[in-house]
Amino acid sequence: MDEKFLKNILESVQSNALSIDDAITKLRYLPFEDLGFVTIDHHRSLRQGFAECIWGKEKTAEQILTIIKRMMDKEHPIIVTRVDQEKAEYIIKTIPTMHYHNVPKMLTFVPQEIKIAGKGVIMVISAGTSDIPVAEEAVITARMMGNRVETLYDVGVAGMHRLVNQLGKLDQARVFIVVAGMEGALPSVVGGLVSKPVIAVPTSIGYGANFGGIAALLGMLNSCASGVTVVNIDNGFGAGFVASLINRL
Amino acid sequence: MDEKFLKNILESVQSNALSIDDAITKLRYLPFEDLGFVTIDHHRSLRQGFAECIWGKEKTAEQILTIIKRMMDKEHPIIVTRVDQEKAEYIIKTIPTMHYHNVPKMLTFVPQEIKIAGKGVIMVISAGTSDIPVAEEAVITARMMGNRVETLYDVGVAGMHRLVNQLGKLDQARVFIVVAGMEGALPSVVGGLVSKPVIAVPTSIGYGANFGGIAALLGMLNSCASGVTVVNIDNGFGAGFVASLINRL
Amino acid sequence: MDEKFLKNILESVQSNALSIDDAITKLRYLPFEDLGFVTIDHHRSLRQGFAECIWGKEKTAEQILTIIKRMMDKEHPIIVTRVDQEKAEYIIKTIPTMHYHNVPKMLTFVPQEIKIAGKGVIMVISAGTSDIPVAEEAVITARMMGNRVETLYDVGVAGMHRLVNQLGKLDQARVFIVVAGMEGALPSVVGGLVSKPVIAVPTSIGYGANFGGIAALLGMLNSCASGVTVVNIDNGFGAGFVASLINRL
Amino acid sequence: MDEKFLKNILESVQSNALSIDDAITKLRYLPFEDLGFVTIDHHRSLRQGFAECIWGKEKTAEQILTIIKRMMDKEHPIIVTRVDQEKAEYIIKTIPTMHYHNVPKMLTFVPQEIKIAGKGVIMVISAGTSDIPVAEEAVITARMMGNRVETLYDVGVAGMHRLVNQLGKLDQARVFIVVAGMEGALPSVVGGLVSKPVIAVPTSIGYGANFGGIAALLGMLNSCASGVTVVNIDNGFGAGFVASLINRL
Amino acid sequence: MDEKFLKNILESVQSNALSIDDAITKLRYLPFEDLGFVTIDHHRSLRQGFAECIWGKEKTAEQILTIIKRMMDKEHPIIVTRVDQEKAEYIIKTIPTMHYHNVPKMLTFVPQEIKIAGKGVIMVISAGTSDIPVAEEAVITARMMGNRVETLYDVGVAGMHRLVNQLGKLDQARVFIVVAGMEGALPSVVGGLVSKPVIAVPTSIGYGANFGGIAALLGMLNSCASGVTVVNIDNGFGAGFVASLINRL
Amino acid sequence: MDEKFLKNILESVQSNALSIDDAITKLRYLPFEDLGFVTIDHHRSLRQGFAECIWGKEKTAEQILTIIKRMMDKEHPIIVTRVDQEKAEYIIKTIPTMHYHNVPKMLTFVPQEIKIAGKGVIMVISAGTSDIPVAEEAVITARMMGNRVETLYDVGVAGMHRLVNQLGKLDQARVFIVVAGMEGALPSVVGGLVSKPVIAVPTSIGYGANFGGIAALLGMLNSCASGVTVVNIDNGFGAGFVASLINRL
Amino acid sequence: MDEKFLKNILESVQSNALSIDDAITKLRYLPFEDLGFVTIDHHRSLRQGFAECIWGKEKTAEQILTIIKRMMDKEHPIIVTRVDQEKAEYIIKTIPTMHYHNVPKMLTFVPQEIKIAGKGVIMVISAGTSDIPVAEEAVITARMMGNRVETLYDVGVAGMHRLVNQLGKLDQARVFIVVAGMEGALPSVVGGLVSKPVIAVPTSIGYGANFGGIAALLGMLNSCASGVTVVNIDNGFGAGFVASLINRL
Amino acid sequence: MDEKFLKNILESVQSNALSIDDAITKLRYLPFEDLGFVTIDHHRSLRQGFAECIWGKEKTAEQILTIIKRMMDKEHPIIVTRVDQEKAEYIIKTIPTMHYHNVPKMLTFVPQEIKIAGKGVIMVISAGTSDIPVAEEAVITARMMGNRVETLYDVGVAGMHRLVNQLGKLDQARVFIVVAGMEGALPSVVGGLVSKPVIAVPTSIGYGANFGGIAALLGMLNSCASGVTVVNIDNGFGAGFVASLINRL
Repeated sequence: MDEKFLKNILESVQSNALSIDDAITKLRYLPFEDLGFVTIDHHRSLRQGFAECIWGKEKTAEQILTIIKRMMDKEHPIIVTRVDQEKAEYIIKTIPTMHYHNVPKMLTFVPQEIKIAGKGVIMVISAGTSDIPVAEEAVITARMMGNRVETLYDVGVAGMHRLVNQLGKLDQARVFIVVAGMEGALPSVVGGLVSKPVIAVPTSIGYGANFGGIAALLGMLNSCASGVTVVNIDNGFGAGFVASLINRL
Repeated sequence: MDEKFLKNILESVQSNALSIDDAITKLRYLPFEDLGFVTIDHHRSLRQGFAECIWGKEKTAEQILTIIKRMMDKEHPIIVTRVDQEKAEYIIKTIPTMHYHNVPKMLTFVPQEIKIAGKGVIMVISAGTSDIPVAEEAVITARMMGNRVETLYDVGVAGMHRLVNQLGKLDQARVFIVVAGMEGALPSVVGGLVSKPVIAVPTSIGYGANFGGIAALLGMLNSCASGVTVVNIDNGFGAGFVASLINRL
Repeated sequence: MDEKFLKNILESVQSNALSIDDAITKLRYLPFEDLGFVTIDHHRSLRQGFAECIWGKEKTAEQILTIIKRMMDKEHPIIVTRVDQEKAEYIIKTIPTMHYHNVPKMLTFVPQEIKIAGKGVIMVISAGTSDIPVAEEAVITARMMGNRVETLYDVGVAGMHRLVNQLGKLDQARVFIVVAGMEGALPSVVGGLVSKPVIAVPTSIGYGANFGGIAALLGMLNSCASGVTVVNIDNGFGAGFVASLINRL
Repeated sequence: MDEKFLKNILESVQSNALSIDDAITKLRYLPFEDLGFVTIDHHRSLRQGFAECIWGKEKTAEQILTIIKRMMDKEHPIIVTRVDQEKAEYIIKTIPTMHYHNVPKMLTFVPQEIKIAGKGVIMVISAGTSDIPVAEEAVITARMMGNRVETLYDVGVAGMHRLVNQLGKLDQARVFIVVAGMEGALPSVVGGLVSKPVIAVPTSIGYGANFGGIAALLGMLNSCASGVTVVNIDNGFGAGFVASLINRL
Repeated sequence: MDEKFLKNILESVQSNALSIDDAITKLRYLPFEDLGFVTIDHHRSLRQGFAECIWGKEKTAEQILTIIKRMMDKEHPIIVTRVDQEKAEYIIKTIPTMHYHNVPKMLTFVPQEIKIAGKGVIMVISAGTSDIPVAEEAVITARMMGNRVETLYDVGVAGMHRLVNQLGKLDQARVFIVVAGMEGALPSVVGGLVSKPVIAVPTSIGYGANFGGIAALLGMLNSCASGVTVVNIDNGFGAGFVASLINRL
Repeated sequence: MDEKFLKNILESVQSNALSIDDAITKLRYLPFEDLGFVTIDHHRSLRQGFAECIWGKEKTAEQILTIIKRMMDKEHPIIVTRVDQEKAEYIIKTIPTMHYHNVPKMLTFVPQEIKIAGKGVIMVISAGTSDIPVAEEAVITARMMGNRVETLYDVGVAGMHRLVNQLGKLDQARVFIVVAGMEGALPSVVGGLVSKPVIAVPTSIGYGANFGGIAALLGMLNSCASGVTVVNIDNGFGAGFVASLINRL
Repeated sequence: MDEKFLKNILESVQSNALSIDDAITKLRYLPFEDLGFVTIDHHRSLRQGFAECIWGKEKTAEQILTIIKRMMDKEHPIIVTRVDQEKAEYIIKTIPTMHYHNVPKMLTFVPQEIKIAGKGVIMVISAGTSDIPVAEEAVITARMMGNRVETLYDVGVAGMHRLVNQLGKLDQARVFIVVAGMEGALPSVVGGLVSKPVIAVPTSIGYGANFGGIAALLGMLNSCASGVTVVNIDNGFGAGFVASLINRL
Repeated sequence: MDEKFLKNILESVQSNALSIDDAITKLRYLPFEDLGFVTIDHHRSLRQGFAECIWGKEKTAEQILTIIKRMMDKEHPIIVTRVDQEKAEYIIKTIPTMHYHNVPKMLTFVPQEIKIAGKGVIMVISAGTSDIPVAEEAVITARMMGNRVETLYDVGVAGMHRLVNQLGKLDQARVFIVVAGMEGALPSVVGGLVSKPVIAVPTSIGYGANFGGIAALLGMLNSCASGVTVVNIDNGFGAGFVASLINRL
């Protein structure tokens, strides 16, 4: 049901060509999906203050380019995740205002200065050097979503003292993202030190019985610290996104 | 938005107290979920020719009883699955018109003779004696949904000749439900013999590397016969239900 | 036992050289596999109205070519699945009347206009852009089997409103194929909206704890909607095939 | 090193019995763990505004009782999770001021009216009737932590319209806890409708290829909605706890 | 097609009422499954020199009794596996000539002295005391199938010298059944010492990462000794059966 | 202890330089591993009538060449498994008398005509075209071990009639090797038709929920036919080897 | 070959009835397993300074009793693991000198004061209260093997400060056994703090995605601390045993 | 808190500018992490007699080079694991004093002769030729840590006699590292022969149901020999490291 159709009904009511009861009946049996302009979408649009996000992995450079172009009309920042160097270069050739972050393999577009919408600092902590690409995916995502982000890298459990030495810093953050591979114990440790929500990101870093991140994932799901929730393996983007949702509260 | 509210708007339009454009605006920003009477439900009700179904497993006899009573007002047949003997007896004491099927552990209520809605015969085939409870769950479900059902039990792959000897019978069915545990090969064999849809039901029957039906489930998902689809382990009810959907076409 | 041998027996009976009882005995102890011309095959041939199908994945271009040539004598349409671009080009060089579909990586041969054998519309729905290759495999398969097919792509669960807006369209289909990766929830949603059989196809799209499609597969097997059956991961062909079987009923 | 020991050093410095350099040396070589009152604990104590929590499952009634008694000296509320009826009755006989919640099998002790510390409403949504015990564990936990909690039960994916009809209600919450078994798709749907953090709790409800909640867990980890994080299977307590951390922000 | 129908055809041929060609055509298009008396069964009957076997686990005492009675008409020995004490006593009360083996929980019936059909000795070796019930299931099965059986128990890998001390004995056997739980290494060791077929039976004995026999199963499938084949976890019966097939050669 | 040392002891005994008791004591405390010439090896050598086998997969062409050369001194046939084309060509350049089988990727060396040591025919059956490389590995192995081998390819379960038509042929074999991927049901079917040992070889052929051969492996381990034992996924060599052991009996 | 036979040979040599070469030949072809008194066993007996160990789980009280009685002749201490209360009482009734430890469910027998054989202290650390039974199994085992043992319980990762506060104590131990369930992170933390071997024992404590200890096991195998090795889930005995082996060095 | 700050406090106490109670308060509320000079690090430094270790796998040659250079200032030996040939050559071009071990793919730097710190011999045993790279990783690691190492390669379970023949050699070692793929049974066998700690290293060598080393891992975790502990799949470095810790005791 487009607007015109609704107008017709209302005009008929106004002109008494249609009784109110008949108008209600007519509306009642319209499948709501045809109401069109009264959809769930305006709820979703609330979220559109956020950057637009494109999952780049299975898409060709050409496909990504097409989507970006369509999105650029709106004034939103744009994030493309999991874009390898080659695709990125192809896209930047056409849209030189995009920026490539080669550690987390992300492309971003910032039409105007990003307004800080998050109320506090999001602290991104990672266990090992190899976890940094995933951590950086979270960092870039959170920054694009309008947050101040600080990082604390290379503070794995076996070097716990490095973390303990930063307790003061920890106290200043509002949300934590903790990125770890191998046994995935770092979120438990952080969760035991802070009283803020901790979003744990297992990474696929490791070998053997790590099973591509399953060991870390299970470690985090079974965390003995109560403030820990978990996202998918290597899902730095998801962690950055949900941390942004929390930091806006 | 209840009906009264909609009426108010329409009356305001009728009395020219509200311009048509303003009325549209008002309606536009009403979240559609408040329209209430224009829901998805009338789509769903199409399906309500079907029997009402209650999953009995985690419910107490008392809880089941309450739900049944509420449902009995409608004239629909009622199916309760996974009800053990003791619960069943408790319920029948109160509603003696219910019938307990002790092999598939189901309770049924048939308010009036079930009309045959399925256009052909649903053939339920099972591999071993131990698979019969699951097969019977499918049988009862399909019958309660208004289908003629025939059965062919104990025709496992290792005794393939028994199946081959029934080829004539197979030709007369319109939909097949094939129930098997252990290696779950029977649906492949049936799918190789007939040109009708085959719904495969893995059962948890077996031991050791059967892993509670996983071996059978994987066997069926990897069937080399193309007409086979699969439902969850021991899900006789689901198979009977979807076979009924197909048989009504 | 070839025909000649049977003829001998019958001639001996005719000429009274063999008593009827002895003839029966002779036939009785012949292993039936030697009867040859009285095989299961004439049952299978019923299905041969269907297109011939070749699984291309592990075969060389040369092997596929050989099989196609042998099949082309019959007047059937031919489908080859999982053929990469290079193999396809090699084959088309020899048989230019074949057509390559590069999204689902299929080769098809249509000797004459395909007769519509399916009685209604098969609706193929996919969750994400990346699921389209699998969805298209189902589409092409179903079309080659003589069905009218409609598609509804990119209506994943997180964008449920897009699906809800198409409810009217959903009502017009007779069989559904729902293709989804990640959490595989779309078939449950569709199954809750329609009263027709839903064939769920999990795809290997996703990463991390998706485990190459297992998450989607388990999601579908555990669907809380009763009309859903499942085929193997990425098995668009199987879904198209079984939907065709159902749509002919 | 207790306070007295430190006092001694300082007094010796004050009285010049100990040189400053020697005092530093003394302090330097004390392993810091003996400083006692300068531990991490004062960080943790921030969190102690929260209720005290006891994991009851593997403990005997006697052990739980001992721990509760020790805790009652502080004025904190107390939560005991996973306590069966029998243990609960044993404990209540001794401490009649404790209250048993038999659906989520929790014992609580509320020394004085709980102050509302959470800034908004925590909405707990569950898919099926059988998921309610886990949902209620989250509810009680969040309430004991000082939050206003609302619930929306039995709005599973296959009955999506029930959820859609409550969109208005959804808009009023600040944090969501979504509890679901079977295919675990509900958090994705909620995450697609709201722009607030969603904590997904998989339950072990289901059978067959559900694998005690793994299907739901994987479904949630692979959610296509970005605002979703996950806790362990059946971990209503953890969800309530982390939702409380978020709601205090 | 029953015999009468075939007789009719033959009589019509004999009386020249039916031409030979027409008779052939008639027979040709009869689905062979109706020939009845020319089935696969006479192939199977070759195997019927073997004892009749009943899988007792999911059957009630009453059901087992019924099957035994029907089988006793033939003169075959009868084996019932996985019968608990209680069921066994119920059955023996009615058929006192049956014998219960309480270690492997089997019931046997020996109508007349079992003829030795196996040409050599079957050696059953087990690793630990706890593996003996499965080993005994193999022993009884092989004896009932007409084999001489010897046993070598408690010779696990960690006590390898006990096995090495029996090398002479090993040389005298024709087929080996090696039963082991835990890491399942014993079949590899035996396979390295002998040049006869080794049938490995993993048992569910162990705990923790044994996963109910999976560790042992995988160990055996990956055996570095080439003469080893594997049966299902705890499948002593299957091992005894296939060893009997081999020993008859 | 080498021979000389033993000689010394014996000479001292002979010359009365050493009492018999002291000699016994001396021998008693010699660790037996030093006896050297009285090792297990002479037991193993019994098996050396068999071809020498080299696992080629992780070895370089150079390493394989070295091992072959050392082995060629003995007059045994030599088998090298899992050798890709490139390595094979490198080796044949040096030893032109070796033969490469490119389907199963094996190299063989036959110094003189292989004597038939197996007493009957080994029948190798495979389900699909793609299973042939594994089947051929079994065939070549069994032939190199001195067996007559026959093959029956492409007789998968969905085309069961092709198998049924060959029942006569099946009766003539002494040992069966059945190779199948996907659902792995073929060994169950063969095991139901014959009364000889069946060695099942799961292959990694398939996709999706096949999990690289696990579906087939589980199917075979759970076979409802009792005469079936299983070897590792794709282990054609192992099947050929153990079939040879059986066929020599 | 028993001693007498060897004596015969030597006497024949002494009396020149047998030439030295013939004697060597005679000995050479005796399979060494018949040498009997020159077995591996004297190597093993070195280990017999250790307590005798009986795995009690699958054994009846009667069976355990029999084994204990046979062992009591030697003067060794005896350990029986996994004995439930009821069995223990039955055994103690007969052998009142045995002692039952009801936390780790062990029976021990100490014939005389255990000599301290371990050179340092074995420190057993556990994460949670529920891990104590497994920890105590390690403690009792190590004490029975002649070690001084200290314990540090309830110092889980989320309460890391409690561990940090005990650093001084940690420095005094020679071998560590760290017992933890849930995410199993404690061994990594301990391994990061100490420079001694750490034996990690995963426990089955936890729920949901803990999978009976797999999460903890994987966490430990993937430990980022290099000094950590792992034993089976709940294997306190094994940890105590290997720690004893190390502590004797 | 640096030393100066502490000095200030103490001076103020000495000069009575600060009361003792206020000084205590000041110290009390200093987060201990700022105490700096009283950190955990001095505990860790004990371990620094060991070589410095770099995990090379996910690092670029450039990154590794940077870390090495920084480390070379200290006089420690340096180990880099998992460095492929190409990276190694790049690094050696800059630092020609480094040495590349191409079998275990390790780079080492030895500033001065390594002092023997281990008290006995570490024996590294491997099952198959393909396990040697992992075994060599253990060997190089242990040597760099100051141990005498001996090796015993290619003594797999199926060729157990080769191991048995080396019993004398086994007696001379103090710690064992046993490396095995496939079924992983070798550590059990070694553990049954020796009374020293055995560190088992599963390798990913094998195929099919080996699952990249899981079969070997499970085999080792379920070892029936009590002196066996396990490290991660292919973790030769970890085994070498922990063996060094033990050998220093």
